[in-house]
Amino acid sequence: LTQAPSRTAARRLARLGTETAFEVSDAAAAWARTGQRVFPMHLGDVRWPTDPLIVDATARAIANGHTGYCPPPGIEELRTAIATDVGRKRGVPYSAANVSVQPGGKPVIGKFLSSVLNDGDEVLCPRPGYPIYESQVNYLGGIVRPYRYAPADGGFVLDLDSLRAAITPHTRVLILNDCHNPTGACCSPASLDEIASLAIKHDLWVLSDEAYGEMRFDGSFDSIVSRTGMAQRTTILYTFSKRFAMTGWRLGAAIGPPEIIRSINSLNINAESCTTHFVQRAMAECLGRELSEPTRLLRELDRRRHSLVAALNEIPDIHVQLPPATFYLFVDFSRVLSRLKCRTTDEFMRIALRETGVSFCTASHFAQTHNDDGAFVRFAYGVLQEDELAAAVDSLRRLTG
Amino acid sequence: LTQAPSRTAARRLARLGTETAFEVSDAAAAWARTGQRVFPMHLGDVRWPTDPLIVDATARAIANGHTGYCPPPGIEELRTAIATDVGRKRGVPYSAANVSVQPGGKPVIGKFLSSVLNDGDEVLCPRPGYPIYESQVNYLGGIVRPYRYAPADGGFVLDLDSLRAAITPHTRVLILNDCHNPTGACCSPASLDEIASLAIKHDLWVLSDEAYGEMRFDGSFDSIVSRTGMAQRTTILYTFSKRFAMTGWRLGAAIGPPEIIRSINSLNINAESCTTHFVQRAMAECLGRELSEPTRLLRELDRRRHSLVAALNEIPDIHVQLPPATFYLFVDFSRVLSRLKCRTTDEFMRIALRETGVSFCTASHFAQTHNDDGAFVRFAYGVLQEDELAAAVDSLRRLTG
Repeated sequence: LTQAPSRTAARRLARLGTETAFEVSDAAAAWARTGQRVFPMHLGDVRWPTDPLIVDATARAIANGHTGYCPPPGIEELRTAIATDVGRKRGVPYSAANVSVQPGGKPVIGKFLSSVLNDGDEVLCPRPGYPIYESQVNYLGGIVRPYRYAPADGGFVLDLDSLRAAITPHTRVLILNDCHNPTGACCSPASLDEIASLAIKHDLWVLSDEAYGEMRFDGSFDSIVSRTGMAQRTTILYTFSKRFAMTGWRLGAAIGPPEIIRSINSLNINAESCTTHFVQRAMAECLGRELSEPTRLLRELDRRRHSLVAALNEIPDIHVQLPPATFYLFVDFSRVLSRLKCRTTDEFMRIALRETGVSFCTASHFAQTHNDDGAFVRFAYGVLQEDELAAAVDSLRRLTG
Repeated sequence: LTQAPSRTAARRLARLGTETAFEVSDAAAAWARTGQRVFPMHLGDVRWPTDPLIVDATARAIANGHTGYCPPPGIEELRTAIATDVGRKRGVPYSAANVSVQPGGKPVIGKFLSSVLNDGDEVLCPRPGYPIYESQVNYLGGIVRPYRYAPADGGFVLDLDSLRAAITPHTRVLILNDCHNPTGACCSPASLDEIASLAIKHDLWVLSDEAYGEMRFDGSFDSIVSRTGMAQRTTILYTFSKRFAMTGWRLGAAIGPPEIIRSINSLNINAESCTTHFVQRAMAECLGRELSEPTRLLRELDRRRHSLVAALNEIPDIHVQLPPATFYLFVDFSRVLSRLKCRTTDEFMRIALRETGVSFCTASHFAQTHNDDGAFVRFAYGVLQEDELAAAVDSLRRLTG
């Protein structure tokens, strides 16, 4: 079954990017199948039990027959619950009309951009950054204008100068990922103020990817949507995946101005009819409740963050600070690479998997093929336990020390 | 929260269609909220308990921690199970590489067309037909070339002459929906042979929407993919929704040549990462098993089919035959409309809801705004019980008799 019609594939596919982290997953899985021990630190997943209240509510929703279609924008009860929860924390009076339920946070990227972008429109994208932003901008005929996250004081900071410099009269959209993947950086309140005034001055739509907004260890919760005039031009990418350890449940939402939400609802009708009905029922019931697992998870991730940073700093030439958010560490290995005579971080990644079983992504998986700042590697610590993380770093130290 | 940036929406949205059946749902729900009894016969849903083996397997999959991400093409076990089940019934040696798991059957339409269609390519679409075909063709810059389902011997038949006449040198894709929504018609084996030879002669890609392939009461299962040379150019839209009464679970698949499946997998990575993990685990376990509910469901639908056809034929001027498949009846109400002085089926639809509570779609919801053949209405009988169906037709008879 390999022969297809003589015609070639659609030209649009040549513009479609991917998330190469999945290829790292495949390589790690292949290595594990040969009987080798693998330490998976590559994927933005959380291995953690879903809260028993959510599991019970799901079983009840199935038993009560919530197994048929529901409205494409999502059930009213969940949209209201999300509007209340998200609005309260951000000081914005959202209602159900501002919410479109999605099978995860990721669908918001393509559906939002499909709603606002025309050919040749420019989109400000973070580098390093989640690669699906640039993939979808290119796929939809837009032009990527990257701005920079720069090393500063042992951590990272959104480089406002590079953001200002990237704006042109054709700029239409800003993609912001505060509590940033892969660096774990958070903008200061003053930076968010400044970014908001740039968005207003240049009349930009904003996609605020807040996937990690609640995975914050230091400082307090903040969102650009809380600034005056921003709720009208911002669509939030909201997801249950990280905060509730529900990556495989596929539940998220777009939250934004009614015009954008109506467009996204039309795209829902065309794309998947609705998001899994009984999962919506369960979360409508549980979102306002006091759940124990999300709190336990955040405490556990904080412990891992501290021990992993301490362990990595024992590798010669590695200096990494505690990032304030996410479950990622973005670490400069340039001196280690020189010592090992590796030319690229991807070569180092392959050697590390083969020699130590430690699997991770590099800057190249975050839209950054070349970086004068260093040779960066991203460690994700949502999957491994503390003792496994210690064993992984121990192996790396022996390889690179 | 109503003011948005001064710029207008993306132009592509003007080309996006919709499934107006959801508007009929909204109207029915609004009417029900005023305290009126509503007989929902508009949506292609099945109100039926999901098989307890599937429910148990789902609970077990959640308890076993299958709540994280899985590979974007779907888990290997489910892809293999689908390949085996679908391949065996069609005589095609499918393997996991031919299967991309989806959150329902509907996503296959847009993802398949995105994989093969360039601007100006023509696509053969059935009329009447599922409206998302034409919506997605237009959205993606293609051109709809409709072919016809025609009344014949009290039922409907795919009009091969109209299909032949619609083919031009620019035709690239044929969308076939054997076991057809909304008419319930099935092609004869000879017709499928003829359609296959047209597809080969004109080197077309084929989307075979087999959502209702197993909701067949008369005749035996058949698929265009079983014809020589067709598996290489055909992508099957497969879904668990109808056969297993799992519309709200959102599980389906694209099954086709590896080139197409690879493209669709890339679109999965960009769109939603993966389909709900534990639902995949549950169905991987259950697909090969002897389940009692799908058999019970089909028997029940057959009973409803017979009693609904008999009841409708007691309305003066209504003559409807038993269609061989689906859970739809597509019925000509033109004489009734004249009697009631309704100008359009949509006017009749609104009057029927108000006067009888019976809610249904019309030909206009299936891409057919005008039809010389008659004034057609679609009754869906997946939701109401036999006694409710009898009460609904009784009300209609009193209104129209």
